[in-house]
Amino acid sequence: MTTHDSAGAPKAPAKDPWDLPDVSGLTVGVLGGTGPQGRGLAYRLARAGQRVTIGSRDAARAAEAAAELGLGVEGTDNAACALRSDIVIVAVPWEGHAKTLESLRAELAGKLVVDCVNPLGFDKKGAYALKPEEGSAAEQAAALLPDSRVTAAFHHLSAVLLQDPGIDEIDTDVMVLGETRADTDIVQALAGRIAGMRGVFAGRLRNAHQVESLVANLISVNRRYKAHAGLRATDV
Amino acid sequence: MTTHDSAGAPKAPAKDPWDLPDVSGLTVGVLGGTGPQGRGLAYRLARAGQRVTIGSRDAARAAEAAAELGLGVEGTDNAACALRSDIVIVAVPWEGHAKTLESLRAELAGKLVVDCVNPLGFDKKGAYALKPEEGSAAEQAAALLPDSRVTAAFHHLSAVLLQDPGIDEIDTDVMVLGETRADTDIVQALAGRIAGMRGVFAGRLRNAHQVESLVANLISVNRRYKAHAGLRATDV
Repeated sequence: MTTHDSAGAPKAPAKDPWDLPDVSGLTVGVLGGTGPQGRGLAYRLARAGQRVTIGSRDAARAAEAAAELGLGVEGTDNAACALRSDIVIVAVPWEGHAKTLESLRAELAGKLVVDCVNPLGFDKKGAYALKPEEGSAAEQAAALLPDSRVTAAFHHLSAVLLQDPGIDEIDTDVMVLGETRADTDIVQALAGRIAGMRGVFAGRLRNAHQVESLVANLISVNRRYKAHAGLRATDV
Repeated sequence: MTTHDSAGAPKAPAKDPWDLPDVSGLTVGVLGGTGPQGRGLAYRLARAGQRVTIGSRDAARAAEAAAELGLGVEGTDNAACALRSDIVIVAVPWEGHAKTLESLRAELAGKLVVDCVNPLGFDKKGAYALKPEEGSAAEQAAALLPDSRVTAAFHHLSAVLLQDPGIDEIDTDVMVLGETRADTDIVQALAGRIAGMRGVFAGRLRNAHQVESLVANLISVNRRYKAHAGLRATDV
């Protein structure tokens, strides 16, 4: 946005990075919303007053999960969920990521897509990063959805904490990545709706892989310290 | 370590992850200690009472940097620095990483090596991750130093803050990675010697790449928020 200085000359001062839009009126869809991560995010966002729809391959399962969550959450199939939402969080398992998004290209056109998928493998030694051909899950989404506004966020949240109704605040920052400031600002604002949470801009999609795969490290942290670790950026 | 329960039967209870060894008597070498990161770490560790030697390709430059730092810091060439140290922090530029370590294989044999190198590229859009053939700088170090105990840590520190004598505490956690608990415990203890800092175990070396390359994201954070961002693990 171009502003003007006191002399009337056009000038583009550094925008306050905490000057974020009001997103309280936007409808949020959660694809894969019956899984632990999607369900947890749907719960927190609905609890914050956001209008939320859960999507699933199976509309009946989505409706059931939505009814369990209450708070006005609705459930339907992934396509209908995408169509009716302004912001669509992608919380499907990595294994179904490409296929799901490919099948929803039309429904997701023009939407603000927030990918929170962490491509991980597991073996006896624990979790390890998988490297998608496109660089990251988020870049895969961007490649498959040329008509959507793709961002990445919500990677480092504990599904256990998100879903625990006894926990009032989720003490963590959310790294938000994307190519367009207007879009990452919206996602930051959305994260900030959840009590305890803060959205922090953390770079372009080409730097999403390390954010996604850092979950493997958090799993090691959780195991060693019997914790549900999140991350806070200091000095920010 | 095997302990025994009250009935005398052998038992291996979970060790307290914060029960870390006393490392105050260990000598720390910093390869690439004349660069901003190495210099900053040397300063903080010496200030914490650790015996520190700076190494450089150029012994005279190392001696000069050491004299500037004071606090008993000494400076010499990389080989002599490695030989006299118990713990050797590798803070050389990524470009010289493989060559430097290859040339010091003998001197680093048996040493606890702490790699803190972040392989990054830079272009008009900012910083981005480079993927070493071995997976990460730390895994490259492990491959080149089969007789050393290789760990990775100290990736996310601001060289500006480290070097600023007016700053008393470095408010950050240090992710420590490695294959052997005895070694990662020592590195965690070393990080904990620096005021404000805490060492947190964060996985095996195969998960070092994302920790190293997350610096690209922190650079984006710093740019957006005009900060020197660090990271804290929550719930730990």
